[in-house]
Amino acid sequence: MKLAVVGGGSTYTPELIDGFARLRDTLPIEELVLVDPAADRLELVGGLARRIFAKQGHPGRIVTTTDIDAGVADADAVLLQLRVGGQAARGKDETWPLECGCIGQETTGAGGLAKALRTVPVVLDIAERVRRTNPNAWIIDFTNPVGIVTRALLQAGHKAVGLCNVAIGFQRKFARLLDVTPGEVHLDHVGLNHLTWELGVRLGGPEGENVLPRLIAEHGDAIADDLHMPRAIVDRLGVVPSYYLRYFYAHDEVVRELGTKPSRAAEVAAMEKELLAMYGDPALDEKPALLAKRGGAFYSEAAVDLAASLLGGGGSTHQVVNTYNNGTLPFLPDDAVIEVQAKVDGTGATPLAVPELDPLYAGLIGNVTAYEDLALEAALRGGRDRVFKALLAHPLIGQFEYAEALTDKLIAHNREHLPWA
Amino acid sequence: MKLAVVGGGSTYTPELIDGFARLRDTLPIEELVLVDPAADRLELVGGLARRIFAKQGHPGRIVTTTDIDAGVADADAVLLQLRVGGQAARGKDETWPLECGCIGQETTGAGGLAKALRTVPVVLDIAERVRRTNPNAWIIDFTNPVGIVTRALLQAGHKAVGLCNVAIGFQRKFARLLDVTPGEVHLDHVGLNHLTWELGVRLGGPEGENVLPRLIAEHGDAIADDLHMPRAIVDRLGVVPSYYLRYFYAHDEVVRELGTKPSRAAEVAAMEKELLAMYGDPALDEKPALLAKRGGAFYSEAAVDLAASLLGGGGSTHQVVNTYNNGTLPFLPDDAVIEVQAKVDGTGATPLAVPELDPLYAGLIGNVTAYEDLALEAALRGGRDRVFKALLAHPLIGQFEYAEALTDKLIAHNREHLPWA
Amino acid sequence: MKLAVVGGGSTYTPELIDGFARLRDTLPIEELVLVDPAADRLELVGGLARRIFAKQGHPGRIVTTTDIDAGVADADAVLLQLRVGGQAARGKDETWPLECGCIGQETTGAGGLAKALRTVPVVLDIAERVRRTNPNAWIIDFTNPVGIVTRALLQAGHKAVGLCNVAIGFQRKFARLLDVTPGEVHLDHVGLNHLTWELGVRLGGPEGENVLPRLIAEHGDAIADDLHMPRAIVDRLGVVPSYYLRYFYAHDEVVRELGTKPSRAAEVAAMEKELLAMYGDPALDEKPALLAKRGGAFYSEAAVDLAASLLGGGGSTHQVVNTYNNGTLPFLPDDAVIEVQAKVDGTGATPLAVPELDPLYAGLIGNVTAYEDLALEAALRGGRDRVFKALLAHPLIGQFEYAEALTDKLIAHNREHLPWA
Amino acid sequence: MKLAVVGGGSTYTPELIDGFARLRDTLPIEELVLVDPAADRLELVGGLARRIFAKQGHPGRIVTTTDIDAGVADADAVLLQLRVGGQAARGKDETWPLECGCIGQETTGAGGLAKALRTVPVVLDIAERVRRTNPNAWIIDFTNPVGIVTRALLQAGHKAVGLCNVAIGFQRKFARLLDVTPGEVHLDHVGLNHLTWELGVRLGGPEGENVLPRLIAEHGDAIADDLHMPRAIVDRLGVVPSYYLRYFYAHDEVVRELGTKPSRAAEVAAMEKELLAMYGDPALDEKPALLAKRGGAFYSEAAVDLAASLLGGGGSTHQVVNTYNNGTLPFLPDDAVIEVQAKVDGTGATPLAVPELDPLYAGLIGNVTAYEDLALEAALRGGRDRVFKALLAHPLIGQFEYAEALTDKLIAHNREHLPWA
Repeated sequence: MKLAVVGGGSTYTPELIDGFARLRDTLPIEELVLVDPAADRLELVGGLARRIFAKQGHPGRIVTTTDIDAGVADADAVLLQLRVGGQAARGKDETWPLECGCIGQETTGAGGLAKALRTVPVVLDIAERVRRTNPNAWIIDFTNPVGIVTRALLQAGHKAVGLCNVAIGFQRKFARLLDVTPGEVHLDHVGLNHLTWELGVRLGGPEGENVLPRLIAEHGDAIADDLHMPRAIVDRLGVVPSYYLRYFYAHDEVVRELGTKPSRAAEVAAMEKELLAMYGDPALDEKPALLAKRGGAFYSEAAVDLAASLLGGGGSTHQVVNTYNNGTLPFLPDDAVIEVQAKVDGTGATPLAVPELDPLYAGLIGNVTAYEDLALEAALRGGRDRVFKALLAHPLIGQFEYAEALTDKLIAHNREHLPWA
Repeated sequence: MKLAVVGGGSTYTPELIDGFARLRDTLPIEELVLVDPAADRLELVGGLARRIFAKQGHPGRIVTTTDIDAGVADADAVLLQLRVGGQAARGKDETWPLECGCIGQETTGAGGLAKALRTVPVVLDIAERVRRTNPNAWIIDFTNPVGIVTRALLQAGHKAVGLCNVAIGFQRKFARLLDVTPGEVHLDHVGLNHLTWELGVRLGGPEGENVLPRLIAEHGDAIADDLHMPRAIVDRLGVVPSYYLRYFYAHDEVVRELGTKPSRAAEVAAMEKELLAMYGDPALDEKPALLAKRGGAFYSEAAVDLAASLLGGGGSTHQVVNTYNNGTLPFLPDDAVIEVQAKVDGTGATPLAVPELDPLYAGLIGNVTAYEDLALEAALRGGRDRVFKALLAHPLIGQFEYAEALTDKLIAHNREHLPWA
Repeated sequence: MKLAVVGGGSTYTPELIDGFARLRDTLPIEELVLVDPAADRLELVGGLARRIFAKQGHPGRIVTTTDIDAGVADADAVLLQLRVGGQAARGKDETWPLECGCIGQETTGAGGLAKALRTVPVVLDIAERVRRTNPNAWIIDFTNPVGIVTRALLQAGHKAVGLCNVAIGFQRKFARLLDVTPGEVHLDHVGLNHLTWELGVRLGGPEGENVLPRLIAEHGDAIADDLHMPRAIVDRLGVVPSYYLRYFYAHDEVVRELGTKPSRAAEVAAMEKELLAMYGDPALDEKPALLAKRGGAFYSEAAVDLAASLLGGGGSTHQVVNTYNNGTLPFLPDDAVIEVQAKVDGTGATPLAVPELDPLYAGLIGNVTAYEDLALEAALRGGRDRVFKALLAHPLIGQFEYAEALTDKLIAHNREHLPWA
Repeated sequence: MKLAVVGGGSTYTPELIDGFARLRDTLPIEELVLVDPAADRLELVGGLARRIFAKQGHPGRIVTTTDIDAGVADADAVLLQLRVGGQAARGKDETWPLECGCIGQETTGAGGLAKALRTVPVVLDIAERVRRTNPNAWIIDFTNPVGIVTRALLQAGHKAVGLCNVAIGFQRKFARLLDVTPGEVHLDHVGLNHLTWELGVRLGGPEGENVLPRLIAEHGDAIADDLHMPRAIVDRLGVVPSYYLRYFYAHDEVVRELGTKPSRAAEVAAMEKELLAMYGDPALDEKPALLAKRGGAFYSEAAVDLAASLLGGGGSTHQVVNTYNNGTLPFLPDDAVIEVQAKVDGTGATPLAVPELDPLYAGLIGNVTAYEDLALEAALRGGRDRVFKALLAHPLIGQFEYAEALTDKLIAHNREHLPWA
């Protein structure tokens, strides 16, 4: 079994490697290729990756390469975890929307559109290269915005599944609070990538008892703290929104906060510098504790499980993934990409049935899906008008004057990454 | 044929009477009952109404009464044009939402919810009284928020159609600009009440040539001026949004404007005082020119046409009305109430087919429908939680802190009109 | 010695009575007249006042009257603690400015101007009545806005001193934190009423050691918590701003907060209802604990000390009062009213010298003094233009569009209290 | 007579040269040195300068040099018109403050402080070099922020006068409207640089008739249009504020506008590119029309007049300049720098007397002077705390949270120009 990780030079990668090492029985990798155009980073990360495998006695071979075609050739699965433009581009996503009072964030709002426009063409090009040598390879997309990117891949006919660590994060957290093993916790996780709600938390499986009301009653403060939301919002909704809903439910407060704080990109860039310095230490042979602050917790577990189910022999599992709606949410088009619990096996992901959604969630999901539809159009076909339209459609923008100004700012700040601009 | 107008003491009424008089061939009314609890107003308005009929030689009898049951008894159709709480309540709708930076308006946003909560129970009670003596009577609702009120009526099993003068206003305006008769202008008018776009303007009928692009190119300035929107928005969209979309497309600008201007309610109240003084003049026997500024232009034409089609023998017509979706917009529930061109005849209104909507419009329509769903729930069943939920669901609110505060303000300012509060 | 309290029916009054009783050696009152137009309230408060005196064995006589002339006749000193328009007017002050994004508060900003306009003419009329029977009577003004009201009184030639409980509150709080008696704490309290900073805290007297740096280092959190400001602001300034500076230093945050919370007036009105119910209980013979939440802590001590110094024989004291600047702050006109530590004796109040002020404070004080100058002009002479000018001059308003809108709102909401409107 | 222009490579310079050429009788320059570190620009501008002199028959010699010491050696007067960091730094000044809702502008607010911090050390260094060879040289500062820079020069003991073209612009405009020659128009121009009001417009001299009321009545629309302010503000004030007051009187509107428009720096940079291309054309021998859009109209006339009065024999003139207050505005320190009509002769500038100022203007002037005091401290001595304090003191900032955030942004965006950062 050969796996390729595109963006393998990411500082995230040791987290992934650690998971591959720990979970080698689930996912018996023979060759792991880390592909990245940044040779320096790649060498630092690759070195640590080999030491982690060695220390844990993983027999797989780790290859590093800057040559994308060589890297993905004949891979059984390709993980995408790249960031077009790096933290510098992200820093911009987080800043220029604030100039007209809109949130600056790399996956939500105008910044999220910028990232989609930068990313979709690059990802489609990579997927095309993958398909050339192995039309049956699975593409696992961890690259944000996961919903739009996955939809782009699926529409282009690729075998692709989108993955995010929000759901597994909740699963682990709830398991800890409930004092059960993660595997016992089944989430009624519904929505779009970064726009989800945990509508139920079931013990034992999709039909298990819903313990969410009890969980909120007993641990509401801990849950709300994690979300940086007031406890009242969790109590009042009776469900647990993802952290990203804060950009909606507390938009204006977050704008003030973002405008008066250093950008997340600056924080991460500083952390990455520190991590890379650590990775260069030949004595280091495990993922450093600092990595936990980098984001992406449990990403490796989720990725291993997903790859194993897609590639592996053994039957189906239930996992939260991004895949075609196909009637799961009846108010969305079939080819919308949603993020829900799905049955995953060698044929791909099939959403489990979802009960009728409260209009409070359905309305917003429908609106953001409309935005994503237009965002993908803009990413695929380019042009100022399509960018404008996607921005106007976004429920956090929605105003003509802002959509106009944000269009100009988006293009000015991302020109080098927009083939059509 | 007997028609009853509930809220007949409105200063609008002479506009309606004038239409009944002019269009008596279309709608041969024998008895017209003006029902209103405000006896003083009713007498002034009723007097003028009789003089208008007399001057124009209309043979119908005009009755005024403060007794709702007597007024609607055995009516063939009942027009609802009431305003629970009067301009005073409206003035509040327009003001308190501004305190937390949200628009104050009597049909859109938090103010619109307040109006829905005040109005739905009253309208349902009236409809029930209508049904008691004539289960076959048609209820034509001109009372805002028309979408929610019509849905409430339909859900309660009434024979109801919702009516708004936005579409007929566009039709007349476009006819003037195109130099054709209004009857030649067919609008591809789509959306929800007060959330509509003219997607096409066709000459001759639903299949006629779409002259909207030409209309915008030649008369874009005039159209945009009427909407108080910049010309650019019409050019960029290529369709004509209703005036009410300004609360969405220019929300923050409108909030500033509303916060620094006298309320519309204050203006209308002043105008009403002046109008009532005129109505009391026994020499006046036609609708005064000032009435044109009161709003509601062409309402009488629309109402006459609608009543005639619903009651009259002669075949079907095409009119823009509010009625059940029934699959017309596939992303909405069948029992959502939409505002579109419909075939109207003695059996009621059946929406004409609508081509696939651009996500730019579909996303917002879906989101506001979700709000309307929750708003109707709150209006029917009451309770702070339901009010909160509807407010949080509204795309112009959407934030937790505001939804909480607006809930308290809405209840505090409307307590006397909320049976459950 | 005869003292009159105008606004004696206030729910504050028992606090004052309690002070008079406890401190009767300092201020040997023979007759205390409570004057209030609200006979009902006055009876409840007067009854409790008499019971408090009785319980504590105070020999003075308490008279209640609704007749202002009779009440103040031949009084040696008159305390003013009235509220023109009551909590209802205050509730408006706290609300309408929010409609255009400005703070709503009864002493600061547009609401404070409204209060000044309502209050100054009433206070001047009362002072004139006082002067008729006793031209030597002292007027102690506790009525807000204290700075403007005191200036109005002084300009009209009255013997007046303005009093606020902010300084004594800090003195008591700091004494507690320092574990010394209040009398040992001398404040370098400088500024205008409700716009002051404690620039130093000295032990033993005006020349004592400045322990403020130590106080902040050791108790900064407690101090900041009381101010509802972040600790960082106290650390960074190195001085302690009054609570009211929050309306400046955190203006936008407070606007959001005020827009999403019930008004303070509503809270106080509810509390007053409860207090009056308690006062009516013939068994109650002391100030109830709830009164502490009403505001005005230590007001009685401050008032007793001030009255005693102004009326009493025994030498001079140092107290924080509002009086003419007379060169104390060289950048202000001599006839500006400032709030500083002063020598108080039978001849009145003379400010102690103040070291050169940091421009950070001087700039703001100068700007607000200019506003107060124009506010007093508007209060004395009336007229829309003067109101507008004062609003434009206020550093928290300063914008043309807002000043225009606030002028209209101020007049509309206060018309019944503005003789010229 | 030798004149040096530091920043002589500016695209402004041809305007200045044209003035020198036209007005050579007033100011008989023998040697004109253009000093600029940007050799390329300097050559283009210097070439055009020589062609303008040649065409107009000016006998003076024009020298260009990148060596500041050589350039200013033995100069009788030195004009400063430099821009530390160029349009790029300006572009930042105009942008980052918007991130927290504050105006972005290169002389007002946080951007203005940034410019002061960049500029003051550079200007003081140049002035020191000037003093080494000619301690009697006059320094004419046109470099913004003129008030703070001039104060820095004066405090360091230099013979300096600050110059701005706002007043001469009004003089020329009013002369045109009144159909008189500019020399007949005397302005009661009062305030601080970029914070001034024309309180009177007198014909014939400082004691001439004040025709401002008439001017406003007859030409109010034209005047208001130039200021981009509503006519109402001019009518209501009865005086003419400078264009820069818009940042105060319409702050929030301007923030929205700035956030949704390209920066002025970007516009100017584009214009400069175009101008420099023109300047390179050897056939061009006059200032191009496009230069009028660059800003700085009439700067040359003002500079010639000022230099002539300071250097020339012939008596005194009245000109609007920036110089020490010295009691002119009694509420400001003597060493504040104000912008008023002054008597200018070989001994320097002496402000003419100014009647008592309306508090509406005095309050704001005092507040901004306090800011300028702290801004100069920060520019001279550096340090995060001083930057913070100046920002908190600015009446357009004034809030703790913003002052903190803006401090960080200012330093981050200007680090390369701040010796202490």
